[in-house]
Amino acid sequence: MPKKLEHVLSVKQLMDTDLLDELFFAALQYEKDDATRAARVTLSGRVLATMFYEPSTRTRFSFEAAMLRLGGAVLTAENAMENSSAAKGESIADTVRVIGGYADAIVMRHFERGAIQEAASASPVPMINAGDGAGEHPTQALLDVYTIRKELGRLNDLHVAVIGDLKNGRTVHSLLPLLSLYPGLHVTLIAPPSLRLPEEYMEQLRARGVTLEETEDFGGEALRAADVVYMTRVQRERFGSDAEYDAVKAVYVLTEHIADELKPEAIILHALPRLQELPAGVDRNLRAAYFRQAKNGLHMRMALLAYLLS
Amino acid sequence: MPKKLEHVLSVKQLMDTDLLDELFFAALQYEKDDATRAARVTLSGRVLATMFYEPSTRTRFSFEAAMLRLGGAVLTAENAMENSSAAKGESIADTVRVIGGYADAIVMRHFERGAIQEAASASPVPMINAGDGAGEHPTQALLDVYTIRKELGRLNDLHVAVIGDLKNGRTVHSLLPLLSLYPGLHVTLIAPPSLRLPEEYMEQLRARGVTLEETEDFGGEALRAADVVYMTRVQRERFGSDAEYDAVKAVYVLTEHIADELKPEAIILHALPRLQELPAGVDRNLRAAYFRQAKNGLHMRMALLAYLLS
Amino acid sequence: MPKKLEHVLSVKQLMDTDLLDELFFAALQYEKDDATRAARVTLSGRVLATMFYEPSTRTRFSFEAAMLRLGGAVLTAENAMENSSAAKGESIADTVRVIGGYADAIVMRHFERGAIQEAASASPVPMINAGDGAGEHPTQALLDVYTIRKELGRLNDLHVAVIGDLKNGRTVHSLLPLLSLYPGLHVTLIAPPSLRLPEEYMEQLRARGVTLEETEDFGGEALRAADVVYMTRVQRERFGSDAEYDAVKAVYVLTEHIADELKPEAIILHALPRLQELPAGVDRNLRAAYFRQAKNGLHMRMALLAYLLS
Repeated sequence: MPKKLEHVLSVKQLMDTDLLDELFFAALQYEKDDATRAARVTLSGRVLATMFYEPSTRTRFSFEAAMLRLGGAVLTAENAMENSSAAKGESIADTVRVIGGYADAIVMRHFERGAIQEAASASPVPMINAGDGAGEHPTQALLDVYTIRKELGRLNDLHVAVIGDLKNGRTVHSLLPLLSLYPGLHVTLIAPPSLRLPEEYMEQLRARGVTLEETEDFGGEALRAADVVYMTRVQRERFGSDAEYDAVKAVYVLTEHIADELKPEAIILHALPRLQELPAGVDRNLRAAYFRQAKNGLHMRMALLAYLLS
Repeated sequence: MPKKLEHVLSVKQLMDTDLLDELFFAALQYEKDDATRAARVTLSGRVLATMFYEPSTRTRFSFEAAMLRLGGAVLTAENAMENSSAAKGESIADTVRVIGGYADAIVMRHFERGAIQEAASASPVPMINAGDGAGEHPTQALLDVYTIRKELGRLNDLHVAVIGDLKNGRTVHSLLPLLSLYPGLHVTLIAPPSLRLPEEYMEQLRARGVTLEETEDFGGEALRAADVVYMTRVQRERFGSDAEYDAVKAVYVLTEHIADELKPEAIILHALPRLQELPAGVDRNLRAAYFRQAKNGLHMRMALLAYLLS
Repeated sequence: MPKKLEHVLSVKQLMDTDLLDELFFAALQYEKDDATRAARVTLSGRVLATMFYEPSTRTRFSFEAAMLRLGGAVLTAENAMENSSAAKGESIADTVRVIGGYADAIVMRHFERGAIQEAASASPVPMINAGDGAGEHPTQALLDVYTIRKELGRLNDLHVAVIGDLKNGRTVHSLLPLLSLYPGLHVTLIAPPSLRLPEEYMEQLRARGVTLEETEDFGGEALRAADVVYMTRVQRERFGSDAEYDAVKAVYVLTEHIADELKPEAIILHALPRLQELPAGVDRNLRAAYFRQAKNGLHMRMALLAYLLS
């Protein structure tokens, strides 16, 4: 049995298939139980604080819903930067030392890479990183892997194509290492030259025995051979000029036509929100799994909160 | 028994006296039970999300209090526009598809007319319109009719005077059709020429057999004959010039003197917040029912949430 | 037995050692019970509304956590000014009259001195002042005194040194009168000339038999003789020029060296957030009690909510 985690800050802490199996099993159990609609008391009397220094209603709700559905209660800071002592110059270590006196766990999102690690080192209670700038978003990677496991029935011998902004997308940076735990991983990286996966990540993956190939060509052979097509949002602010952005934006679009040409058993994933890269018409394609993926976040986070707090 | 509603988006869906009777009865029951202060478990284990793209603490609290007092739990977005993926360009359909995976129902307020209808068509869970721009606010109309029923003991043969901005006030647009369900309705419309009730509403009311009269004269015979005096707020931003606004503002004021001249059994209503049109001195008048009206919103919304979710 | 309080607005209402004993005893009981982690039902079915017209995540969370840990539920307005009818010009009396119809108690913070007293006079439910501008913050004073009682085991014959901005700090204005309830109080006021304790407070304290001494000298004999060293934040906006601020800022700093020279049994308190006046290095000093002080706020507020609502 793996040593119990104190905080969940980085996907590096999750590189353990026993731990993942335990969490996946619990998440699946919560999903099955949902049908009965019985109120749970697992975390009754416990309090979770969510502190979002960078607002995100979707992610905040998924953690809070997980806590509430376990019978726990929630303290919520929708816009912690604007509305807290951070504005008065207080250190984040002091903030969590105090909030950790009121809550049994803290979920934090921050605009600055590393800020949550710094906070956790001072926190008297478990902390979960819900995204730190261009850094990590480990629970997103967890739910992504959980979704693939549920949809395809396996994690070995996967061919995964990741598309879009592989340079800045923290989703991809967390997902690929986690998938590399499982043998036979083949990854196709599809991105414009300016948004390639950083070399450090490629080296790590190769060192773990992952088959890697890179291409700028979207919609070609590699895509049609993939089991998992993972789309990412390309953000305008990453580009020097609008012309550059528009060129990329126009190419990396999973049209209904391209979606139809994927393997019948392939699944399409996206961490959402999606823009033009994934047209609404694709929602009707049976391969579209991204809304189920979002919903899996609820049960995965229930599993994680129960793991950390009970 | 009427077909059960999936969403509550428009007062058009509520044009059914059996449904209204059912809701009014339930609301009254909740009000009576309040005296015992016993904790309820009706919606225990269920989660309501409130998403306010146009902030309103008062309306948000009334829905959330209703959910909490039924034993349910709440996810809250005080300022959804500023703090959510809407800022990144996500469609509202995508947003509710995801949030509907975390919550059992969604209450939404939006600054854009029709936005909530669009959202509801994609929502996997029941949605309630808590106000969409100049569109509708159906639960306000419900609690208004419920208040009249409780205060006067009847809904038939009413003489109702509505005063102020009848052009833009979504409250009045929702209330009058609902009242027209009951026979013998007589409505006096009191407004300046620039803020008259739009012709389409007048036609609808006449088609339903309502007696309508229009006047600019506030405080005259019609007002003194009314059973219900429904005041509305005149908003500065509706006027081209301050002079125009000030002229109207000065005329449509229910002074203590005018309030004293109303029928003894008349009631004064206002959806609140009120400004100069309803001076605080009137609060002592026995006809002042607007704070009870606000409180009725709690029990009416409890009835509605229990209806949709159980 | 003292007459039960309706609202908690000012430390003047708390000038009663029987009442304080009752609250301190309850708070201590809650702290002890925490070890068992059993869910409480004391305020089950009851709803607290927090309305922060001046945002403060820390203070809001401490009240909300107190309510949740008593089994109650919470309505939260993180930024009530921006997101409520106050922006439309509604009076605060109207606001609490309506919110008081939804909630069983209201905790309010406001940027304007006296605003909460005005609100309370219209409120149908108990209100707690969580800070009104340069006015009062009575629950901070309560938890400060509770902390001293717990840490030192007594409230009689104390030597208390208060340091920093004694002119504007509402914390000190509330704390000193409360401490003066207990015999043998000796207070050393350490502040720059521009930030001295206002004469009215000094007169009140002398009239109650308190021994007072004033000095600009920080780190001298008086400090070394103190049982309680209460540091306060000096705020830049209180000064005419940056040079003036910097001069004061540099002098009134409790360095590790000065902290080491305090009496061994002395305690260091601070209402937090702290800036340069209390370096993080002092946290390791055994006399540092400010994070325990913050945590005491939870149990003190539990005691207060239970007192007001049950």
